[in-house]
Formats: sequence, C-alpha cells, structure tokens
Amino acid sequence: MEALRGEKVRIFDTTLRDGEQTPGVSLTPEEKITIARQLDKLGVNVIEAGFPVSSRGDFEAVKMVAAEGLSADVCGLARIIRKDIDASLDAGVDMVHVFVSTSEIQIQHTIKKSLQEIVAQSVEAVEYVKDHGRICLFSAMDATRTPLPFLKEIFGAVEGAGCDIINIPDTVGVAVPTTFYRLVKEICEGTKNMVVDVHCHNDFGLAVANNLAAFEAGAREVQVAANGLGERAGNANLAETVMSLTSMYGAVTSINTPYLYETAKLVERLSEVRISRTAPIVGENAFAHESGIHSHGVLERTDTFEPGIMTPEMVGHKRRIVLGKHTGRHAVKKSLSEMGYTPDDGQLQEILERVKDLGDKGKCVTGADLQTIAEVVIGELAREKQAVILKELAVMTGNTLTSTATVRAVVRGEEKVLADIGVGPVDAALNAVRGILGDETAVKISDFRIEAITGGSDALAEVVIGVENGRLGRKVTARSAREDIVMASVEALINAINRLMLLEEDEI
Amino acid sequence: MEALRGEKVRIFDTTLRDGEQTPGVSLTPEEKITIARQLDKLGVNVIEAGFPVSSRGDFEAVKMVAAEGLSADVCGLARIIRKDIDASLDAGVDMVHVFVSTSEIQIQHTIKKSLQEIVAQSVEAVEYVKDHGRICLFSAMDATRTPLPFLKEIFGAVEGAGCDIINIPDTVGVAVPTTFYRLVKEICEGTKNMVVDVHCHNDFGLAVANNLAAFEAGAREVQVAANGLGERAGNANLAETVMSLTSMYGAVTSINTPYLYETAKLVERLSEVRISRTAPIVGENAFAHESGIHSHGVLERTDTFEPGIMTPEMVGHKRRIVLGKHTGRHAVKKSLSEMGYTPDDGQLQEILERVKDLGDKGKCVTGADLQTIAEVVIGELAREKQAVILKELAVMTGNTLTSTATVRAVVRGEEKVLADIGVGPVDAALNAVRGILGDETAVKISDFRIEAITGGSDALAEVVIGVENGRLGRKVTARSAREDIVMASVEALINAINRLMLLEEDEI
Repeated sequence: MEALRGEKVRIFDTTLRDGEQTPGVSLTPEEKITIARQLDKLGVNVIEAGFPVSSRGDFEAVKMVAAEGLSADVCGLARIIRKDIDASLDAGVDMVHVFVSTSEIQIQHTIKKSLQEIVAQSVEAVEYVKDHGRICLFSAMDATRTPLPFLKEIFGAVEGAGCDIINIPDTVGVAVPTTFYRLVKEICEGTKNMVVDVHCHNDFGLAVANNLAAFEAGAREVQVAANGLGERAGNANLAETVMSLTSMYGAVTSINTPYLYETAKLVERLSEVRISRTAPIVGENAFAHESGIHSHGVLERTDTFEPGIMTPEMVGHKRRIVLGKHTGRHAVKKSLSEMGYTPDDGQLQEILERVKDLGDKGKCVTGADLQTIAEVVIGELAREKQAVILKELAVMTGNTLTSTATVRAVVRGEEKVLADIGVGPVDAALNAVRGILGDETAVKISDFRIEAITGGSDALAEVVIGVENGRLGRKVTARSAREDIVMASVEALINAINRLMLLEEDEI
Repeated sequence: MEALRGEKVRIFDTTLRDGEQTPGVSLTPEEKITIARQLDKLGVNVIEAGFPVSSRGDFEAVKMVAAEGLSADVCGLARIIRKDIDASLDAGVDMVHVFVSTSEIQIQHTIKKSLQEIVAQSVEAVEYVKDHGRICLFSAMDATRTPLPFLKEIFGAVEGAGCDIINIPDTVGVAVPTTFYRLVKEICEGTKNMVVDVHCHNDFGLAVANNLAAFEAGAREVQVAANGLGERAGNANLAETVMSLTSMYGAVTSINTPYLYETAKLVERLSEVRISRTAPIVGENAFAHESGIHSHGVLERTDTFEPGIMTPEMVGHKRRIVLGKHTGRHAVKKSLSEMGYTPDDGQLQEILERVKDLGDKGKCVTGADLQTIAEVVIGELAREKQAVILKELAVMTGNTLTSTATVRAVVRGEEKVLADIGVGPVDAALNAVRGILGDETAVKISDFRIEAITGGSDALAEVVIGVENGRLGRKVTARSAREDIVMASVEALINAINRLMLLEEDEI
C-alpha cells in the first residue's frame, strides 16, 4: 500500500446519471444544475450529467449543465447508436460515455447482436465521438460477467479507435475485491494509452471496497455517486471512496473534502433519499458517541475511538456526545458542566443512574431530560423554572378559512393573550407563541423538524425545535411527542424557550 | 476463492450489544427478547445480548435472553475485571466476551496500565471464565492499531489460559481489506486451537469487505449486526456479510436467508434507525428497477440486471418495477396491462412521453398518475371520476378542547355533513372524512405516514395514506403535500378513496 502513496486518482461522479436512475428519484433540470455546481465546488473531475436521449428534460438538463462553464468535464451517456451520441453532442458535453452490453446473458436477452457486430459498432461509436473532438469513455456493460478474452478484445478495438478512457463496470454488483483486483490488473496490463476506470454497484455492500481494489490494481479513475445513489443498492459512495483513497492510501484526488458533508446533505434534500443515521462519514452518527467507554476515551482524546486519520472537520461534519443508557460518568459530567451544574460525586452517581434508568425504558435522553434530573438531584429548584406557562391554546384550520391560533400564557409572571395566523395550524400556533413573548425576548426558530410518523393518524408525533437568541448567540433544542401534532409543536417550542431563558438569566 | 467453497463460517451477532450502543438507540428488555428470538429463528450461532455490568436494565435483558432456551449461544460482554465477568456469569450466559484495549493510544489515554499488567489480567480473566465452565471469547480492542508482536503475545497468552475464540476488532474502522487480510493471516498462523473471529467497523464503508478478507485469511467466525447498527457508522452488516459469504464464496453458514428481510424490518422498527432506501439486500430499492434498459432486461429475464446469484426470494424480499422519467416502453406497457388498459402503439408512445414529462418535472410517477394519463390518452374519461368531492373542512384543536373536525362533502352526488373528534386535528379530520362515507363504502386506513419535515413550520408536509376495502381486498395508496398538515392528510385520504372507489366500480 505504501507504494500507492501520492498516486493521483480521478473522480468520475455519476450522481446526476446513474444516481438519478435510482428508482423513485427524479430531478428537475434546475435541481441538476444546483447539484452540478456543488459537485464542481467539491472538485470532482467529471460530472456525468445525464442520458440525453432518454427524455426531453434530461437533454435540457445536460445541455444546461454543459453551458455552466464548470471546471469539471461534463459527460453525457449514450448507447453505441448514432442518435444517442448525437443527443450528447447536441447537448454540448465535453465527454461522451458510450456503452454496450458485453456479457452473454445481457447480449442474449436484451441487445441480441453478434459479438462481431458489437465490436464493430463500438469502434464506429468511438470514432464518431473522436471525430467530433470530444473525450470518449467506453464502457463494457456487465464486464464482471463477461469472458475475459472478449473484454480484452473489445477494449483493444476501442483503444485502436482512439478511445481515451475505458470503464470496467460491475453492473450487477457481483464482484468481490479479490477477484475484481485480478480482473482490473489484467485489463490494465493490456492497455497502453487509455485511463482505466471502474463503476461498481453495491448489491452486496462491496462497491467502495471494489473501487479500492481497482485502484490497487492500477485503475486511475473511479466512478462514484453522492450518498451512493444509483440503480438498486446504488453505486460506490462518493465520500467513502474519496476518504478511503486519501486517508488510508495517501492517494491524491482533486476533492475539497470539507465540502463532502454539505454535498451529501444537498443531494439528500433534492433526491429525497434519506441518509441513514449510521451511514459512514456523512451520517448523523458518523462521529457520535454514547457508550461510557467510547465517550470517556473521545473526551480525553478524540482518536482513541475515532479513526483519527479522518476527523469530522476534514469532511465538514461535527462530533457529538449523546446521552443514553450506555453513557458513562465522564460524558454526563461534561454535559452537566456545559449546562452550568457542578454536582458532587454522590450527586453525579445518582444522576448517572437515573439517566441509565430512563435509557433502560427504551428512551433517548435529551438535554432537557438531563436538566430536569439534575435539578431534582442537585436541588436547584428554587428559581422560577418556567418563564412561559401555557394556559390556553385554541387553533382552527380548514379548507376555506385561514389557520388561526389563540394563545393565553403567563410570561414572566404576567398573563398575556394573542391571536395569530399561519399557513397551517402548526405554523399559526408557533407564530402566536412567539408573538406573545414580545420583542424584548424574541426568539428565532432555527430548526423545526417533525420526525417521520408511521402507524396511524393517532400515532405519536415527535417534534424537534431549535431556538436561538441572536443577541446572546445561544441556541437550545427541545423536543416533544404528543398524539396531537399542534400540541407537540407548541410544547417543544415552549420547552425550548424556557431553557433558553434560563441560560440567559445565568448570563445577565 | 474456489478453495473456500463449502467452508463453514460462524455468525456472531452483536445487534443487541454493539448494535444497541448506536448513539440514540435504546432497547427495553422486552424488545431485546423479541429481537433475540428473531435472530435465533434466523439461525445465528451467537447472540451477544448486552453488557450486563453497564446498567440494571441491560443485566436484566441479558438474563432474560439467556433464560429463553435459544439454539444460539448467548454471550455477555465484560471488561477483564472480576465484577464485569461476575455480572455476565450471574446473567447466566453461555459465553463471556472479555475485552481489553491493546493499542498504545487507547492504553495511554483510557485504561492507563502497563502491557505486562494487561496480559496478566487478561489471562486471569480468561481463566476465571473457564473456571466457571463458560465459553470464552477474548477481544484485543483496537487490534488494527496494535503492534503485531504485542497482539501475538497477548493472543498466545490467552490461548495458554484456555481461551476458545479470539477476536480481532477493527474498533475504529481503519482497516482496508488488503492489510486486514495480512493481519488476520498472521494471527491465524500463530493460533493452534482457537477459532479466529473478527469485528469490523464501517467508518470508511469497508466493514463487510473486511469480514470477507478475514474469511479469506482463515477467520471462521465473523461479527455482524442487523442493519449494520453499532457505534458511529456501525458494524459489518449482517445480511451483506452472510449473502456475500454464501452467494459469492459458496461458504456455509447456519443462516436461514429467507428471514433476512423480516429480521432487518423488525430491527428497523424497534431500533428506530431507518434502513436507507438504497441499502443493499434489504433496502426498498434493492430489487427495484426504473430505467428503461434495466426494466426491459429484468422483465425479459431477472438476472440480466440483478446479481442472479442473489434473488429477492433468497432473502425474503420482493422485486418491483418503478415508473418514472427513465421508464421504458416495456415497463409502462406491463403496468398498464395490469390496470386493464391495452393501448395501441401510438397511444403507448404518447403515454410514455407524458410519464417522462412528469418525471422531468421532478415528480415520482405513481400508479394513480399513470391511470390518469392512460384515461386521458385512451379516452376513458366518461365516468364520474371523483366519488367524493370536499366542500368544506373546519378543524379545531387546543390544550383544553377535544380536537374536532367538521366535513361537508358531496359523496356520489349527495351532499353530506358530519362532525367527529380525534386525538389531534389530523386524526379528527380523517375520522370525519371516513365517517361521511357511511357504512356501505367504509374504508380502513392501512397505512398513514408523514414524511419527515425539515425546514420551518411553514415547510411542505407530505402525507402518504394507504386505504383498503376489506370486502374486495383492494388497496390503494395516495399522497399529498401541503403546507397545512391537516389539509394534506385529508387530501391524501380523499385521493385514495376516490381511486379505491373507481377500482371497485370496475369490479362490481
């Protein structure tokens, strides 16, 4: 592996092509441009923007991305058919990605041509692309199920036709790193002037490992998609491939890794495919710690229980310590200290046990829970806890009336009442609550999230609200779960406001 | 790889231990038992049920799992400390998993002992477990950052003490398959009577590949967690590891693979960590196809664009063809035929173009969309489309009043009005809409889902509702997105009801 340190690898991004073929995903041309700009900022070498012949919209999208003047080369996909290539050329791409099935099973059941015809048409397609002065990438689709002699034959033929880059796709995701390494090595050894590229699918969870095996075998371009989007289980994940290549092998890519997290979140939002909480590198938990041993270690020194060769800062993410049943003394003590509590050893032990008890009941322990426990145990209940006490809430909505909410509450001892409107009942209720605080204690809602609800319309709705006070720059997050989504939202907001006000009193 | 065909590999499942240490996840003892029974039905060899000393609840949970009389060995985790091991023994486990940090960085910053002390205490711990007649698994935590000579020394020492299984954990997920293979091979070669086990973390997306590399190097037990749960980016995924071992290497495990999907869904539900749509093997898209070329191939023969060596049936999952902008003629024709439409070639082309147009606008194309398009193009608009037309909706809620909704609607030409209550405004509104249909056309809501909302309280709320009619056994799903969550829910329900009624008319 040491021999590979400093080797350059090109990153070919297919988020907008194979990624967009993810069943259920569909991007508008405008969304494609937003993602293309982000990928360009991230620094990928190639942006495969779409399959221009497949639909009018995709043609327009590729054309618009190509006209953006990005640093990355913009690529369009095409079968080895003139009308496909023409669509890519007309869209103004820098690179045309021509592909054809080479495995017996795909040839027999889909394209139904002879091997001779396939080679001849491939050569013709490559020559056609080169005659038009574009970069040509040729893919032998289903290469990992293609007999090696035919694969060598067709790659040799397109090299003769002036092809720039050949791609070895593991189209149905059946390669394991050991065998893929051997295949890629064989192809690299038979190749003179072309860059060797690979395109790996994740059906068995091995796409990233196969990209790395290909790099070890001599490939100097790898295909990836943000968040691993793509057909079925998707393509090799962009962030995982890049961070493995750079942090583990010391390879050199053109990627600005601190943009990896924001790229992942942008693609998550526009594709509507959620990133798993436990996803590597960009998942919510990637740098989160809960268990006592791990949290203790990380609080002492972060690389005790993190890779170290990859930090959250390197990828634009954040570290978090989460409280729960596995939490140890060190993490609880640190959280309490951040809230301004300094329990003695006995109190700390008691608080820790109560936190674990809550966890044993299957509950996540929020900062609010910890604060309540701490107040009870340490006995600091003297001060007025609730700056805002809700007395009455009434909300109306319907198809022919404007959502309206009335709130009556005691704010710092004084009873107030206010009505306000909103785009829906939740919005109206939250507007009324914020209004009742008056200007001097105005808060901004910086985060509002309803966790996905599954079950019936009578299931618990969980709402998370973050509020901040611009003047002090403090931010507090609180959550609430109720069957009534309006009440849950109001309760979460009031919890958050009360905690924010407590913090402010401490500072005034 | 051929030499490994038929080799047996033990599956050590840590869903209930490392998996449950996933930040934010907390299982009650009852939930742990439910999962343990499922894992036993699935056929894992070992169920690591928890870390008994860590909390009262975890002790109880391990004890209850151990008392279940499962086929799998039940294992408890313990530091190399007598009180930890006693807690496991008291919980009645078959196997005790003792562990200690062996890397310099962890020793220096967490346990702060000399190497001699660590070896001596490890030997003592193993002997103590063996004296009590239990199976002993010993882990050298952070093995992949431990100098090889010390790793060999400590494994040799515990072998001398009668240890049954040694585990090489890649605790912070920094191994790549090539280097991990070499490490595991070195350890296997120095081991006489112990089973060699590995525990891989997924920080770079390589946990499954590392499990496979370890198997190639001689390990005959691998640790996994359902859905890849665990600290940070989690552990090696259970389904991916098992299917790779069996489908790709022809290895033999004790797993009943058709239970993989239901196991994943159960753990998803109880852990509340959602499986990504694009997750391998058990994700919603694992066997889904949308693009024209792929769908055409799969409709002709499934293994053209699926691994083939792994089918949805093998893992208890299902194949789906999804419609969207990438859809080709074959998939649209098949879907229309299932709905009872037989368009001619010109109509089919027109329908296909309209489907792609919808996709180009960033929309998913539902069955309802396809039906509407087909009706317009084929010209079957004669019948009354909307069985229910909403005229008026008014909803009230608050903290001191029962959520109440009034609905006025035209149902099959007759105007009706009805008020009903619910646990919240959405529930009340949906109850009123269902009520207004009367008994004869009563529908059951089989699915209600609010997609997670992020942004502000004025963001679009997307609601998905599935309704079914018990008598005909038909099920229809519809969705709606509005800023007002109550209106979105009502609209989705009415859409679904209208489509269900259309289907029923067809059948009456």
